[in-house]
Amino acid sequence: MTGRGRFITLEGGEGAGKSTLLAGLREHLQRRGVDLLLTREPGGTALGEAVRAIVLDPARHDLCAESELLLMFASRAQLVRETIRPALDAGRWVLCDRYVDASYAYQGGGRGQPAGRIAALEQWACDGLRPDLTLLLDLPVADGRARAAGRGEADRIEAEADGFFERVRATYRARAAAEPQRFRVIDASQSPEAVLRAAIAATAHLGATA
Amino acid sequence: MTGRGRFITLEGGEGAGKSTLLAGLREHLQRRGVDLLLTREPGGTALGEAVRAIVLDPARHDLCAESELLLMFASRAQLVRETIRPALDAGRWVLCDRYVDASYAYQGGGRGQPAGRIAALEQWACDGLRPDLTLLLDLPVADGRARAAGRGEADRIEAEADGFFERVRATYRARAAAEPQRFRVIDASQSPEAVLRAAIAATAHLGATA
Repeated sequence: MTGRGRFITLEGGEGAGKSTLLAGLREHLQRRGVDLLLTREPGGTALGEAVRAIVLDPARHDLCAESELLLMFASRAQLVRETIRPALDAGRWVLCDRYVDASYAYQGGGRGQPAGRIAALEQWACDGLRPDLTLLLDLPVADGRARAAGRGEADRIEAEADGFFERVRATYRARAAAEPQRFRVIDASQSPEAVLRAAIAATAHLGATA
Repeated sequence: MTGRGRFITLEGGEGAGKSTLLAGLREHLQRRGVDLLLTREPGGTALGEAVRAIVLDPARHDLCAESELLLMFASRAQLVRETIRPALDAGRWVLCDRYVDASYAYQGGGRGQPAGRIAALEQWACDGLRPDLTLLLDLPVADGRARAAGRGEADRIEAEADGFFERVRATYRARAAAEPQRFRVIDASQSPEAVLRAAIAATAHLGATA
Protein backbone atom coordinates (compact mmCIF):
# COMPACT_ATOMS: atom_id res chain seq x y z
CA MET A 1 0.00 0.00 0.00
CA THR A 2 1.27 3.45 -0.83
CA GLY A 3 0.34 6.95 0.24
CA ARG A 4 -1.84 8.13 3.08
CA GLY A 5 -3.73 5.56 5.12
CA ARG A 6 -7.48 5.55 5.72
CA PHE A 7 -9.28 6.94 8.74
CA ILE A 8 -12.35 5.00 9.86
CA THR A 9 -14.44 6.02 12.87
CA LEU A 10 -17.03 3.97 14.69
CA GLU A 11 -19.97 5.69 16.37
CA GLY A 12 -23.08 4.59 18.22
CA GLY A 13 -24.94 4.65 21.49
CA GLU A 14 -24.58 2.45 24.54
CA GLY A 15 -24.94 -1.29 23.93
CA ALA A 16 -24.83 -0.95 20.15
CA GLY A 17 -22.04 -3.51 19.85
CA LYS A 18 -19.09 -1.27 19.06
CA SER A 19 -16.54 -3.40 20.90
CA THR A 20 -17.59 -6.60 19.15
CA LEU A 21 -17.50 -4.90 15.77
CA LEU A 22 -14.11 -3.29 16.46
CA ALA A 23 -12.60 -6.70 17.17
CA GLY A 24 -14.13 -8.28 14.06
CA LEU A 25 -13.22 -5.42 11.78
CA ARG A 26 -9.67 -5.32 13.05
CA GLU A 27 -9.27 -9.01 12.34
CA HIS A 28 -10.69 -8.61 8.84
CA LEU A 29 -8.52 -5.62 7.93
CA GLN A 30 -5.35 -7.15 9.30
CA ARG A 31 -6.02 -10.38 7.38
CA ARG A 32 -6.23 -8.25 4.26
CA GLY A 33 -2.77 -6.87 4.98
CA VAL A 34 -3.75 -3.50 6.40
CA ASP A 35 -1.30 -2.04 8.91
CA LEU A 36 -3.97 -0.98 11.39
CA LEU A 37 -3.90 1.26 14.44
CA LEU A 38 -6.83 0.90 16.83
CA THR A 39 -7.53 3.80 19.16
CA ARG A 40 -10.38 5.42 21.08
CA GLU A 41 -11.93 8.63 22.38
CA PRO A 42 -11.70 10.01 24.89
CA GLY A 43 -8.30 8.41 25.34
CA GLY A 44 -5.73 7.01 22.98
CA THR A 45 -2.88 9.06 24.46
CA ALA A 46 -1.60 9.54 28.00
CA LEU A 47 -3.44 12.88 28.10
CA GLY A 48 -6.56 11.36 26.61
CA GLU A 49 -6.71 8.58 29.16
CA ALA A 50 -6.32 11.13 31.99
CA VAL A 51 -9.21 13.10 30.48
CA ARG A 52 -11.23 9.89 30.11
CA ALA A 53 -10.85 9.18 33.81
CA ILE A 54 -12.22 12.65 34.59
CA VAL A 55 -15.08 12.65 32.13
CA LEU A 56 -16.45 9.19 32.88
CA ASP A 57 -16.05 9.32 36.67
CA PRO A 58 -19.57 8.81 38.11
CA ALA A 59 -18.59 10.95 41.13
CA ARG A 60 -18.11 14.02 38.92
CA HIS A 61 -21.85 14.64 38.60
CA ASP A 62 -21.39 18.43 38.69
CA LEU A 63 -19.12 18.69 35.63
CA CYS A 64 -20.63 21.49 33.55
CA ALA A 65 -21.50 20.87 29.90
CA GLU A 66 -19.01 23.48 28.71
CA SER A 67 -16.12 21.80 30.54
CA GLU A 68 -17.15 18.38 29.27
CA LEU A 69 -17.07 19.70 25.69
CA LEU A 70 -13.68 21.35 26.19
CA LEU A 71 -12.20 18.23 27.78
CA MET A 72 -13.39 16.06 24.89
CA PHE A 73 -11.72 18.38 22.41
CA ALA A 74 -8.54 18.57 24.52
CA SER A 75 -8.29 14.78 24.29
CA ARG A 76 -9.10 14.88 20.56
CA ALA A 77 -6.59 17.60 19.68
CA GLN A 78 -3.80 15.60 21.26
CA LEU A 79 -4.96 12.31 19.71
CA VAL A 80 -5.02 13.80 16.21
CA ARG A 81 -1.53 15.29 16.49
CA GLU A 82 0.22 12.61 18.51
CA THR A 83 -1.39 9.45 17.13
CA ILE A 84 -3.82 9.59 14.22
CA ARG A 85 -2.12 12.03 11.85
CA PRO A 86 1.36 10.46 12.14
CA ALA A 87 -0.11 6.99 11.55
CA LEU A 88 -2.03 8.09 8.45
CA ASP A 89 1.04 9.91 7.13
CA ALA A 90 2.99 6.67 7.52
CA GLY A 91 0.40 4.87 5.39
CA ARG A 92 -1.30 3.07 8.27
CA TRP A 93 -5.05 2.81 8.61
CA VAL A 94 -6.64 4.10 11.80
CA LEU A 95 -9.82 2.70 13.31
CA CYS A 96 -11.07 4.97 16.08
CA ASP A 97 -13.79 4.18 18.60
CA ARG A 98 -15.69 7.53 18.48
CA TYR A 99 -14.47 10.84 17.07
CA VAL A 100 -15.88 14.31 16.51
CA ASP A 101 -19.38 13.10 15.60
CA ALA A 102 -19.65 11.90 19.20
CA SER A 103 -19.28 15.48 20.42
CA TYR A 104 -22.11 16.63 18.17
CA ALA A 105 -24.23 13.72 19.46
CA TYR A 106 -23.38 13.70 23.18
CA GLN A 107 -22.27 17.22 24.07
CA GLY A 108 -24.45 18.80 21.35
CA GLY A 109 -27.64 16.72 21.13
CA GLY A 110 -27.35 15.25 24.60
CA ARG A 111 -26.20 18.26 26.62
CA GLY A 112 -27.47 21.06 24.41
CA GLN A 113 -24.15 22.65 23.48
CA PRO A 114 -24.72 24.61 20.24
CA ALA A 115 -23.63 22.89 17.02
CA GLY A 116 -21.89 26.07 15.85
CA ARG A 117 -19.72 26.03 18.96
CA ILE A 118 -18.72 22.43 18.26
CA ALA A 119 -18.07 23.19 14.58
CA ALA A 120 -15.77 26.07 15.54
CA LEU A 121 -13.79 23.80 17.85
CA GLU A 122 -13.64 21.07 15.21
CA GLN A 123 -12.15 23.50 12.72
CA TRP A 124 -8.98 24.19 14.68
CA ALA A 125 -8.72 21.47 17.32
CA CYS A 126 -8.90 18.59 14.81
CA ASP A 127 -6.39 20.18 12.42
CA GLY A 128 -8.82 19.62 9.54
CA LEU A 129 -8.80 15.85 9.91
CA ARG A 130 -12.08 14.22 8.81
CA PRO A 131 -12.80 10.49 8.65
CA ASP A 132 -12.83 8.75 5.30
CA LEU A 133 -15.62 6.54 6.58
CA THR A 134 -17.83 6.66 9.65
CA LEU A 135 -19.76 3.56 10.67
CA LEU A 136 -22.81 4.37 12.76
CA LEU A 137 -24.25 1.48 14.73
CA ASP A 138 -27.88 2.45 15.08
CA LEU A 139 -30.19 0.87 17.63
CA PRO A 140 -33.35 1.91 19.50
CA VAL A 141 -32.33 3.39 22.84
CA ALA A 142 -34.26 0.86 24.92
CA ASP A 143 -32.57 -2.07 23.14
CA GLY A 144 -29.10 -0.61 23.64
CA ARG A 145 -29.69 0.12 27.30
CA ALA A 146 -31.02 -3.39 27.90
CA ARG A 147 -27.84 -4.81 26.36
CA ALA A 148 -25.57 -2.48 28.34
CA ALA A 149 -27.36 -3.11 31.64
CA GLY A 150 -25.45 -6.30 32.41
CA ARG A 151 -22.05 -4.59 32.44
CA GLY A 152 -21.86 -3.44 36.05
CA GLU A 153 -21.81 0.13 37.34
CA ALA A 154 -22.67 2.76 34.74
CA ASP A 155 -20.14 5.52 34.07
CA ARG A 156 -21.14 9.20 34.36
CA ILE A 157 -22.51 9.38 30.83
CA GLU A 158 -24.13 5.93 30.77
CA ALA A 159 -26.06 7.00 33.88
CA GLU A 160 -28.01 9.66 31.92
CA ALA A 161 -31.79 9.35 31.40
CA ASP A 162 -33.43 7.93 28.27
CA GLY A 163 -34.22 11.39 26.88
CA PHE A 164 -30.52 12.14 26.72
CA PHE A 165 -29.85 9.03 24.64
CA GLU A 166 -32.82 9.70 22.37
CA ARG A 167 -31.28 13.08 21.55
CA VAL A 168 -27.87 11.43 21.03
CA ARG A 169 -29.38 8.94 18.59
CA ALA A 170 -31.37 11.59 16.73
CA THR A 171 -28.25 13.73 16.32
CA TYR A 172 -26.20 10.83 15.01
CA ARG A 173 -28.92 9.95 12.50
CA ALA A 174 -29.26 13.53 11.35
CA ARG A 175 -25.52 13.81 10.79
CA ALA A 176 -25.52 10.55 8.83
CA ALA A 177 -28.40 11.78 6.67
CA ALA A 178 -26.55 15.05 6.00
CA GLU A 179 -23.32 13.31 4.96
CA PRO A 180 -24.29 10.07 3.21
CA GLN A 181 -20.95 9.89 1.42
CA ARG A 182 -19.02 9.62 4.65
CA PHE A 183 -21.48 7.73 6.85
CA ARG A 184 -22.70 4.18 6.65
CA VAL A 185 -25.58 3.48 9.03
CA ILE A 186 -25.69 -0.13 10.19
CA ASP A 187 -28.75 -1.64 11.83
CA ALA A 188 -27.26 -2.83 15.10
CA SER A 189 -30.24 -5.01 15.97
CA GLN A 190 -28.88 -7.57 13.50
CA SER A 191 -26.62 -10.43 14.55
CA PRO A 192 -22.96 -9.55 15.21
CA GLU A 193 -22.06 -11.46 12.04
CA ALA A 194 -24.45 -9.44 9.92
CA VAL A 195 -23.19 -6.19 11.48
CA LEU A 196 -19.62 -7.18 10.66
CA ARG A 197 -20.52 -8.09 7.08
CA ALA A 198 -22.15 -4.68 6.62
CA ALA A 199 -19.08 -2.94 8.03
CA ILE A 200 -16.73 -4.92 5.80
CA ALA A 201 -18.83 -4.06 2.76
CA ALA A 202 -18.63 -0.39 3.73
CA THR A 203 -14.83 -0.47 3.81
CA ALA A 204 -14.55 -2.03 0.35
CA HIS A 205 -14.40 1.32 -1.48
CA LEU A 206 -11.54 2.58 0.69
CA GLY A 207 -8.97 0.91 -1.54
CA ALA A 208 -7.78 -2.59 -2.22
CA THR A 209 -4.91 -3.91 -0.14
CA ALA A 210 -2.82 -7.03 -0.19
CA MET B 1 -22.42 45.41 51.67
CA THR B 2 -25.33 44.78 49.34
CA GLY B 3 -25.66 43.38 45.83
CA ARG B 4 -23.13 41.58 43.70
CA GLY B 5 -19.60 41.14 45.00
CA ARG B 6 -16.44 42.24 43.22
CA PHE B 7 -14.20 40.08 41.06
CA ILE B 8 -10.48 40.82 41.26
CA THR B 9 -7.88 38.87 39.28
CA LEU B 10 -4.15 38.81 39.79
CA GLU B 11 -1.83 38.24 36.84
CA GLY B 12 1.91 38.21 36.29
CA GLY B 13 4.86 36.11 35.24
CA GLU B 14 7.00 33.73 37.25
CA GLY B 15 8.58 35.19 40.37
CA ALA B 16 6.54 38.40 40.24
CA GLY B 17 5.36 37.98 43.83
CA LYS B 18 1.77 36.94 43.29
CA SER B 19 1.61 34.67 46.35
CA THR B 20 2.96 37.33 48.70
CA LEU B 21 0.55 39.92 47.34
CA LEU B 22 -2.41 37.51 47.53
CA ALA B 23 -1.77 36.94 51.22
CA GLY B 24 -1.39 40.65 51.97
CA LEU B 25 -4.42 41.68 49.94
CA ARG B 26 -6.57 39.01 51.52
CA GLU B 27 -5.63 40.22 54.97
CA HIS B 28 -6.38 43.82 54.04
CA LEU B 29 -9.77 43.07 52.49
CA GLN B 30 -10.89 40.81 55.29
CA ARG B 31 -9.90 43.43 57.84
CA ARG B 32 -12.16 45.84 55.97
CA GLY B 33 -15.05 43.40 56.39
CA VAL B 34 -15.05 41.90 52.92
CA ASP B 35 -16.37 38.34 52.75
CA LEU B 36 -13.60 37.11 50.48
CA LEU B 37 -13.15 33.94 48.45
CA LEU B 38 -9.62 33.18 47.31
CA THR B 39 -9.21 30.82 44.37
CA ARG B 40 -6.81 30.02 41.54
CA GLU B 41 -6.37 28.90 37.96
CA PRO B 42 -5.96 26.31 36.77
CA GLY B 43 -7.66 24.76 39.78
CA GLY B 44 -10.15 26.02 42.32
CA THR B 45 -12.50 23.06 41.84
CA ALA B 46 -12.01 19.29 41.92
CA LEU B 47 -11.99 19.33 38.11
CA GLY B 48 -9.65 22.30 37.99
CA GLU B 49 -7.11 20.69 40.29
CA ALA B 50 -7.17 17.52 38.16
CA VAL B 51 -6.52 19.68 35.11
CA ARG B 52 -3.76 21.54 36.96
CA ALA B 53 -1.99 18.26 37.67
CA ILE B 54 -2.06 17.45 33.95
CA VAL B 55 -1.05 20.85 32.65
CA LEU B 56 1.86 21.50 35.02
CA ASP B 57 3.31 17.96 34.99
CA PRO B 58 6.91 18.32 33.71
CA ALA B 59 6.67 14.80 32.23
CA ARG B 60 3.91 15.90 29.81
CA HIS B 61 6.35 17.67 27.49
CA ASP B 62 4.42 16.60 24.38
CA LEU B 63 1.13 18.25 25.33
CA CYS B 64 0.07 20.17 22.21
CA ALA B 65 -0.74 23.87 22.42
CA GLU B 66 -4.33 23.32 21.35
CA SER B 67 -4.95 20.81 24.15
CA GLU B 68 -3.30 23.08 26.70
CA LEU B 69 -5.63 25.91 25.69
CA LEU B 70 -8.70 23.67 25.84
CA LEU B 71 -7.73 22.28 29.24
CA MET B 72 -7.26 25.78 30.66
CA PHE B 73 -10.73 26.76 29.47
CA ALA B 74 -12.24 23.51 30.78
CA SER B 75 -10.91 24.37 34.22
CA ARG B 76 -12.11 27.98 33.85
CA ALA B 77 -15.64 27.11 32.69
CA GLN B 78 -16.15 24.92 35.73
CA LEU B 79 -14.58 27.47 38.11
CA VAL B 80 -16.85 30.27 36.87
CA ARG B 81 -20.02 28.21 37.21
CA GLU B 82 -19.23 26.23 40.35
CA THR B 83 -17.32 28.78 42.39
CA ILE B 84 -16.90 32.37 41.19
CA ARG B 85 -20.39 33.20 39.92
CA PRO B 86 -22.25 31.77 42.94
CA ALA B 87 -19.90 33.65 45.31
CA LEU B 88 -20.41 36.97 43.50
CA ASP B 89 -24.15 36.43 43.42
CA ALA B 90 -24.08 35.91 47.19
CA GLY B 91 -22.34 39.27 47.60
CA ARG B 92 -18.88 37.84 48.29
CA TRP B 93 -15.73 39.23 46.70
CA VAL B 94 -13.54 36.85 44.72
CA LEU B 95 -9.77 37.18 44.41
CA CYS B 96 -8.49 34.81 41.72
CA ASP B 97 -4.85 33.93 41.05
CA ARG B 98 -4.88 34.17 37.22
CA TYR B 99 -7.91 34.20 34.93
CA VAL B 100 -8.61 34.57 31.25
CA ASP B 101 -5.83 37.14 30.65
CA ALA B 102 -3.40 34.34 31.48
CA SER B 103 -4.65 32.36 28.47
CA TYR B 104 -4.04 35.32 26.17
CA ALA B 105 -0.56 35.70 27.68
CA TYR B 106 0.59 32.07 28.00
CA GLN B 107 -1.36 30.09 25.41
CA GLY B 108 -1.66 33.08 23.07
CA GLY B 109 1.56 35.08 23.38
CA GLY B 110 3.64 32.21 24.71
CA ARG B 111 2.41 29.31 22.55
CA GLY B 112 1.13 31.23 19.55
CA GLN B 113 -2.55 30.29 19.77
CA PRO B 114 -4.49 32.98 17.84
CA ALA B 115 -6.12 35.69 19.97
CA GLY B 116 -9.38 35.31 18.04
CA ARG B 117 -9.54 31.66 19.04
CA ILE B 118 -9.09 32.58 22.68
CA ALA B 119 -11.67 35.38 22.43
CA ALA B 120 -14.21 32.93 20.99
CA LEU B 121 -13.65 30.53 23.86
CA GLU B 122 -13.85 33.36 26.38
CA GLN B 123 -17.23 34.39 25.03
CA TRP B 124 -19.01 31.16 25.88
CA ALA B 125 -16.79 29.30 28.34
CA CYS B 126 -16.61 32.18 30.84
CA ASP B 127 -20.34 32.84 30.73
CA GLY B 128 -19.65 36.55 30.13
CA LEU B 129 -17.84 37.00 33.42
CA ARG B 130 -15.17 39.72 33.31
CA PRO B 131 -13.08 40.94 36.26
CA ASP B 132 -13.92 44.27 37.87
CA LEU B 133 -10.21 44.79 38.44
CA THR B 134 -7.10 43.02 37.18
CA LEU B 135 -3.80 43.62 38.96
CA LEU B 136 -0.81 42.93 36.74
CA LEU B 137 2.47 42.40 38.54
CA ASP B 138 5.00 43.45 35.94
CA LEU B 139 8.66 42.54 36.15
CA PRO B 140 11.52 42.05 33.67
CA VAL B 141 11.71 38.37 32.78
CA ALA B 142 15.27 37.89 34.02
CA ASP B 143 14.38 39.33 37.44
CA GLY B 144 11.34 37.10 37.81
CA ARG B 145 13.22 33.99 36.78
CA ALA B 146 16.03 34.76 39.21
CA ARG B 147 13.49 35.03 42.03
CA ALA B 148 11.68 31.83 41.01
CA ALA B 149 14.89 29.84 40.64
CA GLY B 150 15.15 29.01 44.31
CA ARG B 151 11.83 27.14 44.43
CA GLY B 152 12.92 23.65 43.44
CA GLU B 153 11.98 21.77 40.28
CA ALA B 154 10.27 23.88 37.63
CA ASP B 155 6.82 22.79 36.43
CA ARG B 156 6.13 22.21 32.72
CA ILE B 157 5.43 25.87 32.00
CA GLU B 158 8.12 27.32 34.26
CA ALA B 159 10.61 25.20 32.30
CA GLU B 160 10.03 27.22 29.10
CA ALA B 161 12.80 29.37 27.59
CA ASP B 162 13.18 33.12 28.12
CA GLY B 163 11.65 33.98 24.75
CA PHE B 164 8.41 32.35 25.87
CA PHE B 165 8.25 34.55 28.97
CA GLU B 166 9.14 37.68 27.02
CA ARG B 167 6.10 37.04 24.81
CA VAL B 168 3.97 36.37 27.89
CA ARG B 169 5.03 39.68 29.43
CA ALA B 170 4.52 41.62 26.20
CA THR B 171 1.02 40.20 25.82
CA TYR B 172 0.07 41.07 29.39
CA ARG B 173 1.34 44.63 28.93
CA ALA B 174 -0.49 45.03 25.64
CA ARG B 175 -3.74 43.85 27.21
CA ALA B 176 -3.28 46.24 30.12
CA ALA B 177 -2.64 49.13 27.73
CA ALA B 178 -5.78 48.25 25.77
CA GLU B 179 -8.01 48.14 28.85
CA PRO B 180 -6.70 50.76 31.28
CA GLN B 181 -10.05 50.94 33.09
CA ARG B 182 -9.85 47.32 34.16
CA PHE B 183 -6.09 46.84 34.58
CA ARG B 184 -3.73 48.28 37.14
CA VAL B 185 -0.10 47.58 36.29
CA ILE B 186 2.09 47.34 39.39
CA ASP B 187 5.87 47.54 39.21
CA ALA B 188 6.81 44.27 40.88
CA SER B 189 10.44 45.25 41.34
CA GLN B 190 9.33 47.36 44.31
CA SER B 191 9.34 46.06 47.88
CA PRO B 192 6.47 43.72 48.83
CA GLU B 193 5.08 46.51 51.02
CA ALA B 194 5.03 48.98 48.16
CA VAL B 195 3.40 46.40 45.87
CA LEU B 196 0.71 45.77 48.47
CA ARG B 197 0.09 49.51 48.93
CA ALA B 198 -0.35 49.91 45.18
CA ALA B 199 -2.78 46.97 45.07
CA ILE B 200 -4.79 48.32 47.99
CA ALA B 201 -5.01 51.72 46.32
CA ALA B 202 -6.28 50.03 43.17
CA THR B 203 -9.11 48.34 45.05
CA ALA B 204 -10.33 51.57 46.64
CA HIS B 205 -12.76 52.41 43.82
CA LEU B 206 -14.46 49.01 44.04
CA GLY B 207 -16.77 50.19 46.77
CA ALA B 208 -16.55 50.95 50.45
CA THR B 209 -17.13 48.16 52.89
CA ALA B 210 -17.56 47.93 56.62
